[in-house]
Order: sequence, then C-alpha cells, then structure tokens
Amino acid sequence: MKIDELYALLRRRGVLWPTAEIYGGLQGLYDYGPLGAALKRNVENAWSAWFLGLSPDYHRIEPAEFLPEATVRASGHLENFTDTEVTCESCGASFRADTLLEKIRPEGIDGLSASDVAALVRTSGAKCPSCGSSSLKLPRAFNMMLGVGLGVAGGEKAYLQPETAQASYLAFARMWDVGRRALPLGIGVIGRAYRNEIAPRQVLFRMRAFTQAELQVFFDPAGFPVPFATVAAEPLPVLRASARESGATEAETRRASELVAAGIPEFYVYHLAQMFRFLRDVLGYPAERLRFLEKSEKERAFYNRIQFDAEARIDSLGGFREVGAVHYRGDYDLTRHAAGSGRELAVTPTGGATFVPHVLELTFGVDRNVWALADLHLARDGERTVWKLPAFLAPIEVGVLPLIGKEHGAFAEALTATLLGRGLAARYDEAGSIGRRYARMDEAGTPFCVTVDGGTVGDGPEHGTVTLRLRDSRAQERVPAEALPARLEAAVRPPRPAVP
Amino acid sequence: MKIDELYALLRRRGVLWPTAEIYGGLQGLYDYGPLGAALKRNVENAWSAWFLGLSPDYHRIEPAEFLPEATVRASGHLENFTDTEVTCESCGASFRADTLLEKIRPEGIDGLSASDVAALVRTSGAKCPSCGSSSLKLPRAFNMMLGVGLGVAGGEKAYLQPETAQASYLAFARMWDVGRRALPLGIGVIGRAYRNEIAPRQVLFRMRAFTQAELQVFFDPAGFPVPFATVAAEPLPVLRASARESGATEAETRRASELVAAGIPEFYVYHLAQMFRFLRDVLGYPAERLRFLEKSEKERAFYNRIQFDAEARIDSLGGFREVGAVHYRGDYDLTRHAAGSGRELAVTPTGGATFVPHVLELTFGVDRNVWALADLHLARDGERTVWKLPAFLAPIEVGVLPLIGKEHGAFAEALTATLLGRGLAARYDEAGSIGRRYARMDEAGTPFCVTVDGGTVGDGPEHGTVTLRLRDSRAQERVPAEALPARLEAAVRPPRPAVP
Repeated sequence: MKIDELYALLRRRGVLWPTAEIYGGLQGLYDYGPLGAALKRNVENAWSAWFLGLSPDYHRIEPAEFLPEATVRASGHLENFTDTEVTCESCGASFRADTLLEKIRPEGIDGLSASDVAALVRTSGAKCPSCGSSSLKLPRAFNMMLGVGLGVAGGEKAYLQPETAQASYLAFARMWDVGRRALPLGIGVIGRAYRNEIAPRQVLFRMRAFTQAELQVFFDPAGFPVPFATVAAEPLPVLRASARESGATEAETRRASELVAAGIPEFYVYHLAQMFRFLRDVLGYPAERLRFLEKSEKERAFYNRIQFDAEARIDSLGGFREVGAVHYRGDYDLTRHAAGSGRELAVTPTGGATFVPHVLELTFGVDRNVWALADLHLARDGERTVWKLPAFLAPIEVGVLPLIGKEHGAFAEALTATLLGRGLAARYDEAGSIGRRYARMDEAGTPFCVTVDGGTVGDGPEHGTVTLRLRDSRAQERVPAEALPARLEAAVRPPRPAVP
Repeated sequence: MKIDELYALLRRRGVLWPTAEIYGGLQGLYDYGPLGAALKRNVENAWSAWFLGLSPDYHRIEPAEFLPEATVRASGHLENFTDTEVTCESCGASFRADTLLEKIRPEGIDGLSASDVAALVRTSGAKCPSCGSSSLKLPRAFNMMLGVGLGVAGGEKAYLQPETAQASYLAFARMWDVGRRALPLGIGVIGRAYRNEIAPRQVLFRMRAFTQAELQVFFDPAGFPVPFATVAAEPLPVLRASARESGATEAETRRASELVAAGIPEFYVYHLAQMFRFLRDVLGYPAERLRFLEKSEKERAFYNRIQFDAEARIDSLGGFREVGAVHYRGDYDLTRHAAGSGRELAVTPTGGATFVPHVLELTFGVDRNVWALADLHLARDGERTVWKLPAFLAPIEVGVLPLIGKEHGAFAEALTATLLGRGLAARYDEAGSIGRRYARMDEAGTPFCVTVDGGTVGDGPEHGTVTLRLRDSRAQERVPAEALPARLEAAVRPPRPAVP
C-alpha cells in the first residue's frame, strides 16, 4: 500500500490519528487508539523480553524525560544536536536542507560542513518547495532540542531528552552502586524522545515526540564475554561502508563469524545478530527485507567507533528505512559526564584495574516499527484484508463470537470472562454475520477466533466444544472450550532469546 | 518509617533516585531503578486490568503528551491552571502560598480569591522559610503549565499536558466514529502529566512530571446503567462535605446503597465503590487507612458536580493524602472543546435525541501509589525488613536460589530459564548465605523463593523437587519443580473486577 492508503486505513480503524485532531492536529504528533496502543505496548514488551533476556545483568529502568542543561552541554547536544534549515526569502517557509537536496544528494548531508551545504544549495538551483522561489536564505544550524524553563521564573533550564540514552549514562553510577559492581552491566529504557523537527513527515517515521527502546551495555574494553558460538553461523545481510564507497547498493549475506574474521569484535557482532533475530524471528520481518547498513567514519558521529543501522524495506515509504541500530560508542559518554558532573565514573571491579567503561548501544524505534509492522504484515489476501501480526503482538488475541447472540451469547460471554481472567486479550463480538466478524478480526490482526454455536450449548457430542479458527490459514478445528487457555497462552507469550 | 528513612531505603535499594543525580538532581523529578520501574509497570497493569475490566466499552489509548494552545484556552487551563506564589523581597526565594500558610490554614487555599490569600499572608505574620525575612511580595498567580515552542522559530505554541484527561476529551470524536457509536464509552490513559510546581516536595507526591492513570467515561445523562446491586452493600469510609462543615474530621462507614439514598447517583457510587475495591483488594491498602473525602462546592472546580478524593493514610507523609479521585464533570469538557474547535461534539445515538455527553472521571496517581505501596507494605518484622507487596505487583515474582552454587547452580539456572520462559519474573541468586538471600528477596518484595538443594539433584525421593518458601509466613513446602509454573502463574495475575 502507499503511505496515504495505509495511513487512511490505520486512521479509520482507530489504530492512530493526529494529536488534537478536532483542532486540526499538531504536526508530527500522533495518538494511538485502542488497537495501536495495545500493539505498541506488545512491541515494547517483546523488545523487553528479547533484549533484557540476553543477560540477567541487563536491567530496565524508567528515568524522567528531562535533562538539566549541564548534562546536554557535557554530552555535546547543546552544541551539536542540530539540523540544517533553509528558509525561503519569498514566502518564509522553512525546510530541512537534506530534504531540499534529496534529489541531487539522496545519501543525505551527514558529515558535510555548513559551508558545503550552502554551496550545494547554491549550485543545485534548489527552489522553495512551497512557492517555487529561488531566493533562499543561507542554510543555518538549528538546535532540535525542546527546552523548558522549570521553576517560578523558568529559571532552571532543562531539555526534554532528545534520546533515552543519556538518562542511562546518568544512571550508571547509581546502578553500579546498587548492583553487583561488575561488568558488563546493561541499562535499558523504553521512553519518550523529543526532537523539534523542522519538517515532520511520513507519519510515524519523523515525529516530534516518539518512543525509543534503547539498551546501553557498559563493559570492560579489555574483555566483553558473549556466547558467540550461538550466533556464529547466523547469515546477516550487510552492506559494508567499504562496499558502499565502491558503489555497492545491495546487501550481501555474511555469516556472523565472517564479520568477526573481517575485524569486527565478537561482542559487537553478537548483539548485531541478536538484533537481526529480533527483527526476523520476533517481529516477523522477512530476512530479504532486512539489511544492516554500515555507516562510514564520515557519516557516523565521531564518538561512534562502529555503527550499523538496521533497515527494513518499507514499501509505503519507498524503500529501506532505519528501524534500529547498534553503536559502539567507546568511553565517550561516561568520560564526558564525568567531566561535566565532576563525579568519578571510572570503575574498579574487584581485584582489577581502574578504567572508564565503554558503551555498546542498541537502539530501536518503537513507533517506526509499529508502522513497519503495518506495512509488512497488513495486506489484501484475495477479498480479505488481513493483518498477519505475530500472535504475541496482536492487540486482540482471541475473538469470541456467538453464532447467534440470543442463543449462544451467554456461553460466549462467560468464556470471554474466563479467557480475560487468564490474562488473555479476549474480545466478545456479536455484531453482524459471522463472516463480517471474522473479517473485522482479520483486519485487526486477531490470530484466533472462537465460535460458540448450537453444538457448544447443546446436549450432543459437541457439548462444551467450540470452533477455533486460525486467522492466516482460515483453518478451523473443534476444541473443548476448557482447553483454550492453555493452548492460547503459549502462543501469545513473546519469545525470549536462547542464551546458554 | 519517616519520609527520609523510607526515601533513603528506596534509594539505597535502587527503587528510585533523583533524576540526573550525578549532577545534583533536578528538583521534583525522579528516576525509577529496576525494582521501582517493574513495580510501577505492575501497578499500571493492575489499574488497567481493573478499571478497563469494568466494561468492554472502556478502552485504553495512548495519546501524545502535547496540547496545542487553543485546546488549553478552551479547557480553561491557560487562564486558571495556576498556583499562588509568594516571593521573598530579601532573598528572592519563592514559595507556594498554601505551604506558607500551612500552619494557620491546614485545609489549603483552594477556592480563595487572590485578595483573600494576600490578606491571609499579611495578617498571618508569615516569614520567609528560607531567610526569615517578613518582607514578602504580594502573592501572585503563576501558571503551572510547561510551554514549548514547536517548529523552526518555536512558532507553534504548545503545552506539555497538565493532566491526561484533556487528551481523552480531544479523542472522543474519533473514538465515537471508530467504535459502536453508543454510550457509555470509556477512554483510559496511562500517561505523563507535567506541572511546573513552585516547590516540589515529598518525593513522589508533588513532582514536576508524573504518571497518571485516568479513565473518562462519556455517558448519556438521561441514563448510565451500572450493575449497582454488585456493590450496594459495600461499606465505604466517607467524610461528607456537610459533615466536614460541621467540624467532623473522621470518616464514617456508609454502604453504597446509603449514599444513593442520600442523593448521589448510582453510576457515581458504583465507580466510587470500584475505586475502593481497587485500593483495598488489589493494592492491599487496609480499609481503615482509606477514606473518601467529599469536596465542597467551594473547594472543587466549578465544573465538578460531585467530587470525592480517595485518600490513604500514609504515615511517612504525616496523614491522609490523595491517591485518586472520582469527578462528575457534567458536559463541561465536550462543550468547551466543541466551542474551541468548532467541531460538533453532541451525539445522536441510534433512534435517540441529540445531546452533549457527560463525563465521569476516575483519576489515579501512579507515582503516589508507588510511594503508598512502600509506606503501607514495607516494614520491619522482627529482624527482617519485608515488603509485603501483593504478589502480582512484586518486581521479582520468584527468586531461584541454589543452596550451593557449584552443585545446584545448573539446575537452578535451568529452572530460572523455564520460569522466565513462562512469563514469570524469575531471578537467580547464588550470592551469600541462603539467609542473606532470603533477606534480600524479602526486602525487594519477592513473594516466592525456590531453593534447589541436594535432594533436587540427587537420586532419592526428593529428586526434582524444590523448597518453595513464602515471603510473608516464611512457610516452606516441598514441591515438584515441574508444578511451579502453574502454581505461580495464578498468583501473579492482576485481579479483575467481578462484573456480570
């Protein structure tokens, strides 16, 4: 589907809609309706089960979303968290320089200096996309953080966090103290991030407030043990920076062990492979729609030693788009915050030397992946529209449908209550023909439907049994209602990684 | 425990700590560590299971946390969401007028005019709590919303939502359209709220950013059917406004049916009783520590027709404190937003008349209740410190402890993996004596511990069995390891309300 078609469908189904819609919306902000909110929570829970399941020393915290000014000065965001903006002299509209230059420079402008960008705008003959004028002001850097003044006179300057990562770096000292005082130590956050985008667009892909799931693993650069053998044979679709510089545009499959042989550390490749498994095996993205794009030294932030962006091919957005990333950030973060706060952040594990821990960061965009889950799994299947979500991500896990409301409704309602009581997201529906109800459940991504009929409530051999209907295959089977909870529970539990 | 003692314990255990702690903290903002974050999530899930379980027509959404200026103009927040602030002429420090007047006016200053407050400050002889000077500036109203400028020049003025309720009112039209187009319709939100408190204090009780769980039920004022018989006999501890005006300070027990006989509508009392059951039966607050305090017409916002605050007696804070509330808001919200947005918000259910739906609001402060759960359930029990959390709220549901790491560790680790795989929050711990490990688990609120010993891994009659130890009674029993998942799963599921 095209972006507009998919967005219209999601909006109509109440998956999401613009914030303050009745007032005309608020650019770059969306509300999740019942289906969207449940899906988003399920994605968050699946992320948590997978990434925090990688080690008992990976923990989840929930920090506040504000950063005092001193912290963003130390992290470099106050100076560097900028976008380059171009304003039209004629009509006053503003645009991101990279968007303006998209056609002549599809790879973006990361790593270019301000004067390089200015030269590009000048020589490209770019025109204002709004009024067509070619009188454009010189590009200028624009800080994307949203500041707020706390306190009576707004005197305490703070910022809404531009990423959740900083809060984990700030929490490291306390986490070290309350924990085992040993590395590796992982700190995971699912939280909001805020960016004052010049031009929000593509619905959930460039928002002004969005949800990130990020894991920061602090480790000893002298050794970060991982069970590498468990991923060594994993075939990873990678597009190396060196290959890109030679003009390659397609990913090649490399086993995890080959990437290590090529010089990438085991701890890095191990986590990259786990990210791949999460996207393929948990979220169900087809492997051929995934790739890991390595950023070159010029493209990545200077403190990132290794960076592969996880990209999924999202047809509604016209191609591969970033849905996550793995960054090896070295000791940049703790070194900067030690300097900024005056607090010693080097550690001395029992019996060892003193050093500043390094950071491996796994990022994941929750909203972007909600969109990807719609793009990749929601499709027409003959006459049906079916959202083939993995069962543990489905907003409604089981639909309970009485064939005839008056006759079978009581049994179906009691069954719904039983399933809800077992923690299953069950939904009773008696409105319309059974075919229409199946269609509604298919479109909402409900993996299981249970139909209660005359056999269920009668005295015959089918007494107490129901029809279990599977969304994807439309296969139907007769099962005892009592057997449903155990059968469904296993299917709706998010998978955890196999770790030794 | 006193507030400082409890806070120190929670901080030491990594339940919570000040945001940006290594930079000296950020006033009124806290981070939740692993135990606190899990507890808070469990409270949110329990709220959701209970309140959204009241009706299949009560839905949860997840709106963005920003409100455009026009919405807060319409809702009245731009004009009225103020606190009264007093600044010292000598030292420049600012204080809330109600805090300054606390001793002479413990009931607060809600409903007083600015000139009344000024007169009180003048006649009270109040002094600056910071420097002792009596030169205080005239009190002034101070808007507590946090504004942000969105867009390149910050030109789109928006506010961080001061309460989650507004987002539900704004979502009503869309929810009506995508739903059954019938009332009652409930919209629940668990989300962040932001208030630029002049003087944040009492840790989680007056924060600048906090989490609310709120349910807005839209209904037809001509009839809001509820299964009242299921709560009619519930004994509710109430302190009526009329009694308070006659000097009463203690709650009296009134059956739900008596409150209805006294003129309060059934739909209101029904939800009040469900709030009571949630606090008593789900969160486990003793009934004698709960009361519903009715606000008088003068105290409550003018649009609230009925308001009872749910209060819990929290010793660390010196008495009863608000942890939730039930508001009957009439048609104020939709009427104002219809006027503000120009969008018709009256509805015409099939075959009925056209009217503006009324709103019943159930609010619940998540952070405040996390604190209350610590205050009410964490206590010394002889030599032990035990956090007697309900099992489904416990951050760690089951501790798995090998008696001797080397000999029983492998079995215990495999058992931990099995329990995690079944969705249980299991935690392996082999550090220190078994007594010390029980003590740590007791303090963390872990309801179950499982000990693996020689019998478990041996060939004798105890093969495959473990010791299950209960936190509160310290009772121990021998159970087959295989039987654990089924046994524990039922205990850690949050309860749902019994609705017909």
